[in-house]
Amino acid sequence: MIVALKRGASPEKESQLIDWLKGMGLGVHISRGEFQTVLGLIGDTGRVDMDLVASLDIVDTVSRVTETFKCCNRKFHPDDTVVQVGDVKIGGGNFALIAGPCSVESEDQIVYIAKAVKAAGATLLRGGAFKPRTSPYDFQGLKATGLEYLKIARQETGLPIVSEIMSRADLELFEDVDVLQVGARNMQNFDLLRELGHLNKPILLKRGLANTLKELLMSAEYIMASGNENVILCERGIRTFSDYFRNTLDLSAVPMLHELSHLPVIVDPSHATGIARMVPPMALAATAAGCDGLIIEVHNDPQNALCDGAQSLKPEDYADLVKKVMAVREAVK
Amino acid sequence: MIVALKRGASPEKESQLIDWLKGMGLGVHISRGEFQTVLGLIGDTGRVDMDLVASLDIVDTVSRVTETFKCCNRKFHPDDTVVQVGDVKIGGGNFALIAGPCSVESEDQIVYIAKAVKAAGATLLRGGAFKPRTSPYDFQGLKATGLEYLKIARQETGLPIVSEIMSRADLELFEDVDVLQVGARNMQNFDLLRELGHLNKPILLKRGLANTLKELLMSAEYIMASGNENVILCERGIRTFSDYFRNTLDLSAVPMLHELSHLPVIVDPSHATGIARMVPPMALAATAAGCDGLIIEVHNDPQNALCDGAQSLKPEDYADLVKKVMAVREAVK
Amino acid sequence: MIVALKRGASPEKESQLIDWLKGMGLGVHISRGEFQTVLGLIGDTGRVDMDLVASLDIVDTVSRVTETFKCCNRKFHPDDTVVQVGDVKIGGGNFALIAGPCSVESEDQIVYIAKAVKAAGATLLRGGAFKPRTSPYDFQGLKATGLEYLKIARQETGLPIVSEIMSRADLELFEDVDVLQVGARNMQNFDLLRELGHLNKPILLKRGLANTLKELLMSAEYIMASGNENVILCERGIRTFSDYFRNTLDLSAVPMLHELSHLPVIVDPSHATGIARMVPPMALAATAAGCDGLIIEVHNDPQNALCDGAQSLKPEDYADLVKKVMAVREAVK
Amino acid sequence: MIVALKRGASPEKESQLIDWLKGMGLGVHISRGEFQTVLGLIGDTGRVDMDLVASLDIVDTVSRVTETFKCCNRKFHPDDTVVQVGDVKIGGGNFALIAGPCSVESEDQIVYIAKAVKAAGATLLRGGAFKPRTSPYDFQGLKATGLEYLKIARQETGLPIVSEIMSRADLELFEDVDVLQVGARNMQNFDLLRELGHLNKPILLKRGLANTLKELLMSAEYIMASGNENVILCERGIRTFSDYFRNTLDLSAVPMLHELSHLPVIVDPSHATGIARMVPPMALAATAAGCDGLIIEVHNDPQNALCDGAQSLKPEDYADLVKKVMAVREAVK
Repeated sequence: MIVALKRGASPEKESQLIDWLKGMGLGVHISRGEFQTVLGLIGDTGRVDMDLVASLDIVDTVSRVTETFKCCNRKFHPDDTVVQVGDVKIGGGNFALIAGPCSVESEDQIVYIAKAVKAAGATLLRGGAFKPRTSPYDFQGLKATGLEYLKIARQETGLPIVSEIMSRADLELFEDVDVLQVGARNMQNFDLLRELGHLNKPILLKRGLANTLKELLMSAEYIMASGNENVILCERGIRTFSDYFRNTLDLSAVPMLHELSHLPVIVDPSHATGIARMVPPMALAATAAGCDGLIIEVHNDPQNALCDGAQSLKPEDYADLVKKVMAVREAVK
Repeated sequence: MIVALKRGASPEKESQLIDWLKGMGLGVHISRGEFQTVLGLIGDTGRVDMDLVASLDIVDTVSRVTETFKCCNRKFHPDDTVVQVGDVKIGGGNFALIAGPCSVESEDQIVYIAKAVKAAGATLLRGGAFKPRTSPYDFQGLKATGLEYLKIARQETGLPIVSEIMSRADLELFEDVDVLQVGARNMQNFDLLRELGHLNKPILLKRGLANTLKELLMSAEYIMASGNENVILCERGIRTFSDYFRNTLDLSAVPMLHELSHLPVIVDPSHATGIARMVPPMALAATAAGCDGLIIEVHNDPQNALCDGAQSLKPEDYADLVKKVMAVREAVK
Repeated sequence: MIVALKRGASPEKESQLIDWLKGMGLGVHISRGEFQTVLGLIGDTGRVDMDLVASLDIVDTVSRVTETFKCCNRKFHPDDTVVQVGDVKIGGGNFALIAGPCSVESEDQIVYIAKAVKAAGATLLRGGAFKPRTSPYDFQGLKATGLEYLKIARQETGLPIVSEIMSRADLELFEDVDVLQVGARNMQNFDLLRELGHLNKPILLKRGLANTLKELLMSAEYIMASGNENVILCERGIRTFSDYFRNTLDLSAVPMLHELSHLPVIVDPSHATGIARMVPPMALAATAAGCDGLIIEVHNDPQNALCDGAQSLKPEDYADLVKKVMAVREAVK
Repeated sequence: MIVALKRGASPEKESQLIDWLKGMGLGVHISRGEFQTVLGLIGDTGRVDMDLVASLDIVDTVSRVTETFKCCNRKFHPDDTVVQVGDVKIGGGNFALIAGPCSVESEDQIVYIAKAVKAAGATLLRGGAFKPRTSPYDFQGLKATGLEYLKIARQETGLPIVSEIMSRADLELFEDVDVLQVGARNMQNFDLLRELGHLNKPILLKRGLANTLKELLMSAEYIMASGNENVILCERGIRTFSDYFRNTLDLSAVPMLHELSHLPVIVDPSHATGIARMVPPMALAATAAGCDGLIIEVHNDPQNALCDGAQSLKPEDYADLVKKVMAVREAVK
């Protein structure tokens, strides 16, 4: 950490600051320039409150030169992490095709879709049983029953299942779910993250609507620091001033997260765009950007014209998309 | 809800859409204009998925003309809600002065500050015992012990206490806390909100970093729909591209929330700015904008020059500020 | 345009509003629902100030159902526009590879780079002669001399040239430049746009840092309404809260602009990311998203290690990238 | 400027970087820490391209410790600038009350409003003659005629006049206008700013929709570096994800701009909120935050109920507001 003092900072305050920093067990390297004094802090600076130091009236700027994330940092773990879900591998060159409906609605529905997406090439089945909804009056999911239907679909197809957990109070219900998803709104529900760190199964961690890449990595760090290293990062769109889209898919997150971390990075173009016809171009773009997988909503009701335009793809469109995704992977190798 | 169809939408798809809407128990008023057909939906449109309808390929635009929030809506409850905490009232002309340290650090500290802020005019004592931190390696608070110290400070001063709850698993520990705070990162932790709705004590609900006013009101609705009507809304800064501030304090939220809802609205200028010397002007601005109270960080260590610049005010500066706040309230009456 | 009135709007105010709208030459279709009255406006609603209507106290919501952009609207011009620059075509299946240095620095430099990018497959040469800089103390470009060097490079290679114009006062200097670029900061310099509308040469219009897609199209409309239909739209990153990038490249703009407009859409991954090693993945992603071309910075100084990390690619890296771009185009056809 | 190198940076690249920096005339102070090497640059670092240095692959972080703005920097000019317009002073304790219609519509209108706002306490008259409009099809203002009407209103009332200039081509028309306003969309129209720097009259510079405070100050610097030191800064709302407001008024800009610069800072609550009934609370909040003046839209048509809700206040409401503004100024002294 580097602390640049303001020109004309009083020597007393300077000494107080240096003593306080040393009191925290840090080495302090003092460099007195012509115009200002710069302190270089050596040691475990992760515990220093950067905002507090920056707000001191003798301090001009503070910059951290070492990241505070450790477990997920590529510097300390240069090889790609490969997350294993049954026979399916994610990361390190293994591409995950996760597909399924937004919500599990019935046994028939989820089994039907599971078979359809498997036929199209999907390698994991997603389906929401517990649904985070902005309004308390909206459908909140089939809950425990939904999870049971998902397991039936897994039995019928062999596809491992992915579902969102919203509360540590529900952990028991998820015991037999293969991958636990943390939704965007819970990305900084640190209590939940810590609990998931005690499990021994993959966690799919979605980036919050307004969270930076560093905050996403720090949330992964919460899970990993508790002992669970099976974390999959997921970009799903950020909140901006966009007029035609619900969110803005931030694909530059893909190569940057790969540079910063060894964890697999997947992309959710369905939630990011909210518009089915925009899902294929963005899924292809995500693939070209180098992601390790795609999580895409596929709906079961192809005969009902009403669903044409929704966020979910029809199974046949998903099948077409998978072929193109594979072609793009080949092209950018 | 008003659904405008695209020019040239096929009559079959139009009929399908109308039948589907009617199937949801809605009245559909069809208005065929020269250029396009517009559907006016009558009934409980809160259950209609606006995004899904908007994404249909025959639909041009969808707009809701009635808000989906009910319990907190001023339309259905024109009078200001007055939240009562012991003898202290918040809202409806009653101004809350909530002050105290970011974290409870020791019994001496919190008792010292409690006395200081009471002398300065504060009406409630705040102090964090469970701290949400971006990094798992940062100080997470004194937890249960911190709450005990807070209660001692309450006993010494008579000030009701406010503290943040991060998980429903901690609910028992908070049984004797007067006001439970939901932090910005948990504003959409719906599981927690629902649990707090079963309590019979005031909830201070902070706006999330990137949440709209409507989303804030919907989160209040989660608490109120479960039975607890004692909700205090709190603006604490939103995430923008700001260069000199951690967040951007959105004071226009104050008059707009007052127009939309009958709930009290308070402002936290300490977290919004992150810089102690910016707290007084923004606290005064918030007061002039018509807020029902201020929650401000006051720190216990005035003799230590290091704290001069931090986010927390010294007790004497807080006392000065309270006087000016009162003068501004008088001026804008 | 649809205007939904508030419940309980007074009949007098309602009549006043209707009369005022009719006074503007609009047809007003009144639909009185159980809960509220909705007005459907027919005619040239482009002249109605939507914000003013929305702010009236009897009005609940206003929504436009017809876009205000006409010349660039795909509805009125279903076929892709193909912009012709000499022998080079852009749009409608023709992919533009625009490359060159951020600034023209010398005749040798620009001729060297022009030859290098041509060999790599580029079809147009870019180079800045007038540079918009945040600081008045920064290098502002070689100006007229820079344009002369660009023309020499064109003569040597046959590549048409693209350069940014910042003021209509410089128009004469640009007489012999093939494509005039309007930079992000000038996207709403309406005075300049109108002037460019009187020219008969292609305009490359960059999206402003914080401008919506609709605003971009309205700026294109300024040029087209003045008579110049040769507009190329360019996505170059938007301002968000991003921590590791200068801007956030919004690739969802590509398929959406294609849906809304018939104009060609290109992408600038160099300015969007600001980091050379992030340019290739984002260029490939943009291609997969369906863009009509890429504008990429290529620098001339490969022997100087200092440039390794800058925003500009080395010619050999650009050549590699072009091959992959072509492979991705093939894959997504 | 402080440049922290990555751990393990090669000594060759390190030497190259140091030589390159020295080649720019900078002193380089090298501090080799246990974990990394830090370079402190001494001299005129304003010319160093910070983004380029940051993007080098051996560089970890770069931070500037001295601002690049000079003329407007309070460090080099500790006293408040007082801008003089005729007999009216702005800044340094002098509060400007600028009021008038969005657009000049007729001689009668502007004279009527000028008299009304003068009676209410306004000290300057604003009125738009050249209107920047997102759409080329919207009303663009009365132009030269509008300026003539403004001058008549000045003659009738003695109020100095403020009007927006959009192009340097119009400079002659503005010769007899007292204060020239640069709109938000032109904040980085550097060509225009430079021209205004050659004038000898006050420039009211509005912050761009998505511009940082530093960018605003750099734009002021363009004007001042060309010789014109009479710049008034204006906060008028920034673009965020806000749902109920067009823009988000960033009042924290007021105390921060005062800390960074000696220039007067005024606030425009009319454009920031876009809703007349939100103007008074935000005007009062701006005053409490310490601004040096308010620019507020006042409309001429009080008998027409249609205008009730628009962005513009009625003269009588403006008069009420002025009284409260004065009371708040007194309260926060």
